[in-house]
Amino acid sequence: MHNDLLPSLGATINHTIKLRKHIVSPYDPRYRLWEKFLIVLVLYSAWICPFEFAFRRYLPSTIFLVDNIINSFFAIDIVLTFFVAFVDHKSYLLVDEPKRIAVRYLSTWFIFDACSTFPFQTISFFFNGHSKSLGFKLLSVLRLWRLHHVNSLFARLEKDIRFNYFWTRCTKLFSVTLFAVHCSGCFNYMIADRYPDPERTWIGAVIPNFMEHNLWVRYVTAIYWSITTLTTTGYGDLHAENTREMVFGICYMLFNLGLTSYLIGNMTNLVVHGTSHTKNFRDTIQAASEFASRNKLPKHMEEQMLSHICLRFKTEGLKQQETLDGLPKAIRSSIAEYLFFPIVQKVYLFQGFSFNLIFQLVTEMQAEYYPPKEDVILQNEAPAYLYIIVSGAVVHGRLTAGEIFGEIGVLCNMSQPFTIRTTELTQILRLNRTTLFNIIRQSRQDATIVMSNLFQVFN
Amino acid sequence: MHNDLLPSLGATINHTIKLRKHIVSPYDPRYRLWEKFLIVLVLYSAWICPFEFAFRRYLPSTIFLVDNIINSFFAIDIVLTFFVAFVDHKSYLLVDEPKRIAVRYLSTWFIFDACSTFPFQTISFFFNGHSKSLGFKLLSVLRLWRLHHVNSLFARLEKDIRFNYFWTRCTKLFSVTLFAVHCSGCFNYMIADRYPDPERTWIGAVIPNFMEHNLWVRYVTAIYWSITTLTTTGYGDLHAENTREMVFGICYMLFNLGLTSYLIGNMTNLVVHGTSHTKNFRDTIQAASEFASRNKLPKHMEEQMLSHICLRFKTEGLKQQETLDGLPKAIRSSIAEYLFFPIVQKVYLFQGFSFNLIFQLVTEMQAEYYPPKEDVILQNEAPAYLYIIVSGAVVHGRLTAGEIFGEIGVLCNMSQPFTIRTTELTQILRLNRTTLFNIIRQSRQDATIVMSNLFQVFN
Amino acid sequence: MHNDLLPSLGATINHTIKLRKHIVSPYDPRYRLWEKFLIVLVLYSAWICPFEFAFRRYLPSTIFLVDNIINSFFAIDIVLTFFVAFVDHKSYLLVDEPKRIAVRYLSTWFIFDACSTFPFQTISFFFNGHSKSLGFKLLSVLRLWRLHHVNSLFARLEKDIRFNYFWTRCTKLFSVTLFAVHCSGCFNYMIADRYPDPERTWIGAVIPNFMEHNLWVRYVTAIYWSITTLTTTGYGDLHAENTREMVFGICYMLFNLGLTSYLIGNMTNLVVHGTSHTKNFRDTIQAASEFASRNKLPKHMEEQMLSHICLRFKTEGLKQQETLDGLPKAIRSSIAEYLFFPIVQKVYLFQGFSFNLIFQLVTEMQAEYYPPKEDVILQNEAPAYLYIIVSGAVVHGRLTAGEIFGEIGVLCNMSQPFTIRTTELTQILRLNRTTLFNIIRQSRQDATIVMSNLFQVFN
Amino acid sequence: MHNDLLPSLGATINHTIKLRKHIVSPYDPRYRLWEKFLIVLVLYSAWICPFEFAFRRYLPSTIFLVDNIINSFFAIDIVLTFFVAFVDHKSYLLVDEPKRIAVRYLSTWFIFDACSTFPFQTISFFFNGHSKSLGFKLLSVLRLWRLHHVNSLFARLEKDIRFNYFWTRCTKLFSVTLFAVHCSGCFNYMIADRYPDPERTWIGAVIPNFMEHNLWVRYVTAIYWSITTLTTTGYGDLHAENTREMVFGICYMLFNLGLTSYLIGNMTNLVVHGTSHTKNFRDTIQAASEFASRNKLPKHMEEQMLSHICLRFKTEGLKQQETLDGLPKAIRSSIAEYLFFPIVQKVYLFQGFSFNLIFQLVTEMQAEYYPPKEDVILQNEAPAYLYIIVSGAVVHGRLTAGEIFGEIGVLCNMSQPFTIRTTELTQILRLNRTTLFNIIRQSRQDATIVMSNLFQVFN
Repeated sequence: MHNDLLPSLGATINHTIKLRKHIVSPYDPRYRLWEKFLIVLVLYSAWICPFEFAFRRYLPSTIFLVDNIINSFFAIDIVLTFFVAFVDHKSYLLVDEPKRIAVRYLSTWFIFDACSTFPFQTISFFFNGHSKSLGFKLLSVLRLWRLHHVNSLFARLEKDIRFNYFWTRCTKLFSVTLFAVHCSGCFNYMIADRYPDPERTWIGAVIPNFMEHNLWVRYVTAIYWSITTLTTTGYGDLHAENTREMVFGICYMLFNLGLTSYLIGNMTNLVVHGTSHTKNFRDTIQAASEFASRNKLPKHMEEQMLSHICLRFKTEGLKQQETLDGLPKAIRSSIAEYLFFPIVQKVYLFQGFSFNLIFQLVTEMQAEYYPPKEDVILQNEAPAYLYIIVSGAVVHGRLTAGEIFGEIGVLCNMSQPFTIRTTELTQILRLNRTTLFNIIRQSRQDATIVMSNLFQVFN
Repeated sequence: MHNDLLPSLGATINHTIKLRKHIVSPYDPRYRLWEKFLIVLVLYSAWICPFEFAFRRYLPSTIFLVDNIINSFFAIDIVLTFFVAFVDHKSYLLVDEPKRIAVRYLSTWFIFDACSTFPFQTISFFFNGHSKSLGFKLLSVLRLWRLHHVNSLFARLEKDIRFNYFWTRCTKLFSVTLFAVHCSGCFNYMIADRYPDPERTWIGAVIPNFMEHNLWVRYVTAIYWSITTLTTTGYGDLHAENTREMVFGICYMLFNLGLTSYLIGNMTNLVVHGTSHTKNFRDTIQAASEFASRNKLPKHMEEQMLSHICLRFKTEGLKQQETLDGLPKAIRSSIAEYLFFPIVQKVYLFQGFSFNLIFQLVTEMQAEYYPPKEDVILQNEAPAYLYIIVSGAVVHGRLTAGEIFGEIGVLCNMSQPFTIRTTELTQILRLNRTTLFNIIRQSRQDATIVMSNLFQVFN
Repeated sequence: MHNDLLPSLGATINHTIKLRKHIVSPYDPRYRLWEKFLIVLVLYSAWICPFEFAFRRYLPSTIFLVDNIINSFFAIDIVLTFFVAFVDHKSYLLVDEPKRIAVRYLSTWFIFDACSTFPFQTISFFFNGHSKSLGFKLLSVLRLWRLHHVNSLFARLEKDIRFNYFWTRCTKLFSVTLFAVHCSGCFNYMIADRYPDPERTWIGAVIPNFMEHNLWVRYVTAIYWSITTLTTTGYGDLHAENTREMVFGICYMLFNLGLTSYLIGNMTNLVVHGTSHTKNFRDTIQAASEFASRNKLPKHMEEQMLSHICLRFKTEGLKQQETLDGLPKAIRSSIAEYLFFPIVQKVYLFQGFSFNLIFQLVTEMQAEYYPPKEDVILQNEAPAYLYIIVSGAVVHGRLTAGEIFGEIGVLCNMSQPFTIRTTELTQILRLNRTTLFNIIRQSRQDATIVMSNLFQVFN
Repeated sequence: MHNDLLPSLGATINHTIKLRKHIVSPYDPRYRLWEKFLIVLVLYSAWICPFEFAFRRYLPSTIFLVDNIINSFFAIDIVLTFFVAFVDHKSYLLVDEPKRIAVRYLSTWFIFDACSTFPFQTISFFFNGHSKSLGFKLLSVLRLWRLHHVNSLFARLEKDIRFNYFWTRCTKLFSVTLFAVHCSGCFNYMIADRYPDPERTWIGAVIPNFMEHNLWVRYVTAIYWSITTLTTTGYGDLHAENTREMVFGICYMLFNLGLTSYLIGNMTNLVVHGTSHTKNFRDTIQAASEFASRNKLPKHMEEQMLSHICLRFKTEGLKQQETLDGLPKAIRSSIAEYLFFPIVQKVYLFQGFSFNLIFQLVTEMQAEYYPPKEDVILQNEAPAYLYIIVSGAVVHGRLTAGEIFGEIGVLCNMSQPFTIRTTELTQILRLNRTTLFNIIRQSRQDATIVMSNLFQVFN
């Protein structure tokens, strides 16, 4: 499932495909709800399982009833999995054939799921009348296998753009840390609890009659030791007193070294990712600003430069052009048609053109944003582009949306006669002169239409 | 405000737009001063608020008077905000309509600002005659909401190129750390102060009669415990003695794990950013040096290579070409015109050209730096470029600023007749041969002028 | 050996070259096995050497016998090395000349290998009758030189793509950490063991009669102190009691600072490397999704965009195009011929072409994947490419593998007459129109064949 | 000086410029030696200064004599600086005008240098008869200003490619750490030494009569406390006992938080830099290997691909092409001429060409490495390039260095008639067909020479 990028998008993809009777789609909202419900049960299991391991003998028996109820839910899930379609990794199609579903499940995770659900404790109780031996305790640890549900959830959340990556990742790391603290705290308590001489244990040395205190005090003390060790604070008020505890402490500290490195590594990764935008912005503005002051550019030029760069960074979050460039030609064309065809169609210069020709023009145009008060065309510039206003306005002759400029220079092959400057935030379509000529050249008729349109306006 | 990149530039943009009467611009220097004054008050509030929380009963009553004075300043700020224009995120224009300002403020932060300013303590004092209950203490914590002013300030400073990014970021992280240390120190003291048995508290176990010591000793001890825990030093001379303290310790250590990771992540980010220039420089020099020694290049060639690379790295900080490439054509053209038109106009080869043509030539030129004693043209080289000296000097015939070279090869289409070498740091404009011909070709007249200019010199 | 990238590939390269008699190839599987056997011995040496250093007087004498046996294996390896060919770094050829092998070995590592194998202890035993002096102990530390075998192994494993980079690196760091802990634990015990006043040592202060305890207790205590210090937990139950121990502690803590930084640095590096794919995927999907919602694109367009991007990321792991681009033309051509020639040969349009011409067409084609339900050609689009289906299917006229589409538009130079959409995951070869014409233009005959093929189908 | 990249290169640049009389060049080897001698004195000062600060009253008086001798050396350096030329940051020329040197020094660092050298202690001794007051102690701390010499040294070493970046950087960080440990250890001892009640100090609580112990014990204990705190081990055997020590501890721990983050950040940076090559290699090999296995390429093709990639990575360290691309055309041309002219001149095809023409051909050629047994030309391939062997050999007709192949296809415009394969590691010059024709086309005569050369060989 970790390879499966397609179904976990926040961007909704339509998955309503008809499946066989009695087969559930993995994208069914009700199945999704069931999965979320299981996650809650898994979290409870993850907490109670080490806790029972350490404090079983002090727990009320109702807790075992709860355990069995939860177990039964997981048993239902095992049965249900035989009726849930899956996505084939080669054809990317949903498989709803019951036999293939069963073969796939039985050959992968079934055995683990079954073992983690089997009620060893209840059975041992019927046989022995008690269930406190270490062997059965260890069997109950198998329930932690269920945590793979949580792992899958996080793998999915990380790829889901509806959730913030930083916080998803932090939550995951926080959960892992908490679980490690809880487990090791409980395990360390169990070592003390089973040690023959209670005075010579890490907890007994500080709270001599610790077994008589209530559960809360003992649990908090265990967690306190655990977190003191994990964060490497190590006050030393609680510390290993015998060899067993030392061995456990050695293992836990080695694990902690890895865990803290991993936490720091992840945080660094997130910080680097999070600040890259601001750093790029600073570097670019600084370079532009230095360039301006070094060359003693006049004030209005510097302002044009800086506001253009600011705008680019604001809209870079959008990454419009890059997104389009990554797509194949057909999709790009259909997007361009959808967005710009209605505007280009109404431009006076292209009146009388065939649908075909305007379509080809539209697919070659590039959309750009200009900040207020920026020059789009300078007087006397060589004519390289034709511009069509999508939204906003420019000053020369107060052109607004849907109007064209720069066409005289391009068509008459003369340097641009006017300076054109924006008055507000303006979106402009730009068409390369060479491309325009290549397209129009295809038929002599179209070239005539363009020129007659041009002269009609000026006469 | 975190999305608003435009107004926070160190590079000054002209914001003097006329607003309605009684409406203040957010860029008004006096308003900026008021904001800075508020930041000072916020810092005081952030320090006093946890301090009062822990040590209130030992504080003189004058401190409450100060609190109320500060509160009144923030009340003024709330009223003032209704008269401050804001930048609309769609049109990038300042909005000075009082109704829209009010709607925006009331629908966003007004309620938080109001709550954090409301004098709960004074009111409770009138009702109860005392104000020491925990409930009112917690209400006074609402004042910490004001810290968002500091957060906005740092977000703005990070984007302001007048301030060093490294030190801005370090100051921010240092402030966050200090605040965390102060808060947790105070809170931990409060737990000890309210515990029924003073001997069984973290401070009482070491200083048995701690309540009789002066405030300074108790505050320093609290901060000492706090920082010992945060840095994970954990001497253990001060440590949790009861369950309450353990629970607080657990929370604080978990928080610390996140905070230290975040600090390290940020520092790594800054270090990587800061050393990238030197590392690139080393790698490039090393590659060039190895290339030279592997191919046994003669000494003078190696020196030319290395000094060219050094110069490029020195001027790369300027990032001239990249800055220009990111700008739209019109701005680029106007910068080129401003910088190079006066020089190109005086070149003998272009005497008699129209303004129009020189303008087009100028916009196509590229500026480059050459270190002293570097070859610009080699004898017998194919003629690809024309060069104009902006500053500095080259040896062949002792050419200096404003003179042209390489033109004979380019115009007569023969291999370059001389080697041209710089004598000092030289800035040169380079013009591609093909571009030159494309521009001149537009009218037969200009081509004749160029050739006659060329022959005039040589005859 | 650290520069030698070639022989350590997981991708098997054929190394069966005939060598001189009595000379072994370094790629011989039996020699590889011998090397692996030595690694096991090295690991044992690395563990026993510091252990003997600290606890020698308490160890049974059989351990020295084991030492001598291991030493003899390393002596055999020294002799063997004179008969193993090596790869010359200039010609990349295996050198099997005995003289050159001997010269190379004697001038590099022979002296170290010899010293680390020489049985100083046994000799000292014959001379003095005992071998417990510190001088001979230090000589036995020379055996740690053998660890360079492990270092070479890891350097090779890191470059071997059959092993996961993350886990190889983690194992290496874990081994280094364990070795540091073991060494410093043993060394610190030795300091205590040799201190005149056993009560005033780090271990004696806690276990007064520590010399009477069994080896296990003392070793675990030493390791416990060592790891407590390395992870900076520092409980303080065991700490330096005299100046000697303080000096050792100072050195060890300084070393630890470096080691932990190195661990964290490596982990960060691995985390950054490991999450880059997911982060890129998120950023791209987010940009596309925002683009669609901002421009209010219709549902079906958004779906086409997103599924195309998802597919690209799934197949990006393959990096097909990049891999091909990095190769020289001849290899690229032979791969293209191998993969696509059989398909292109059967296309009706190219029936009657010479082998030569189809070969040239094939080398210019680009392979691409399209997800199900994506448009490949839009009606009225300008004809830029010709497409051949390699696998999968498209809807117009239910074309399947081996069929061509888009050819009418390209050859008749008219806008594409139909929309073509995929029905399932489809691999398509794309041929640029200009390239096609350039290749066909070479002979008039081929152009005629193509057109007649085209008309045959449509008539 | 931190901006000055030019003079600090490991790659030697010729700086032997004649200066005025009595003015020393900063690149003079004798001056360099003097600077290195000063660095040694600075290191001694950095160690002795905090040590005297803490332990002055226990030190023999000869140490003050040494101090004064060292001071006099620094006084000499101040005088000397007035006679050392400097590099102007604008013109990059050495300035040897005494007046400008003096102005520059007096306006920048002179005042700091003077203060740090002025013998306050000796003077105070003459006035008061003793020099143990805290004020004079603080004045002597001014000597630490001299550390800027060390800082400049490291800044220079980092940019010097003769020194390994990793170890330079590690040494710098290690020195900073050691200095921090030494300073804080001494300072903390001084606090204890001056505290009225010796029993209630951090050292007195553990060693009650610490003032009677010898200097070594006290110094080691102070350093031990310092390093225990810096590495956040914090055993707790030595800890603050009074408010003064707590305040110092708070400051030191805050500083440590920054220092450890900085150390980790630097280490991460170095690790990322160091492993990037191996990671790229792995990723590329993996992509190629997967590509081959997915497409079931025959064994010999896979081997060609992999050995080509391996070779590219081996020679990528050289970064030949990138280095050349970054240089301006004149340098590139002169390198190409130097390296390849002798070979190309002897090629039979170009016999009879003018120097001029061969020069132009040479500057357009690209050098490439091919591993053994790789195809350079495939039979039937379109003729795109001409190849000249620089070193190594290829199989077809056993061509060796100086011979040309692929010329028949290129000149006769037919597909390549033979497959050409390398037999050993081969360096080849590649010339694009279009470029060749563009250069030859310049004169009809050359084209005739080429064709007659070609036919001479084949007839």
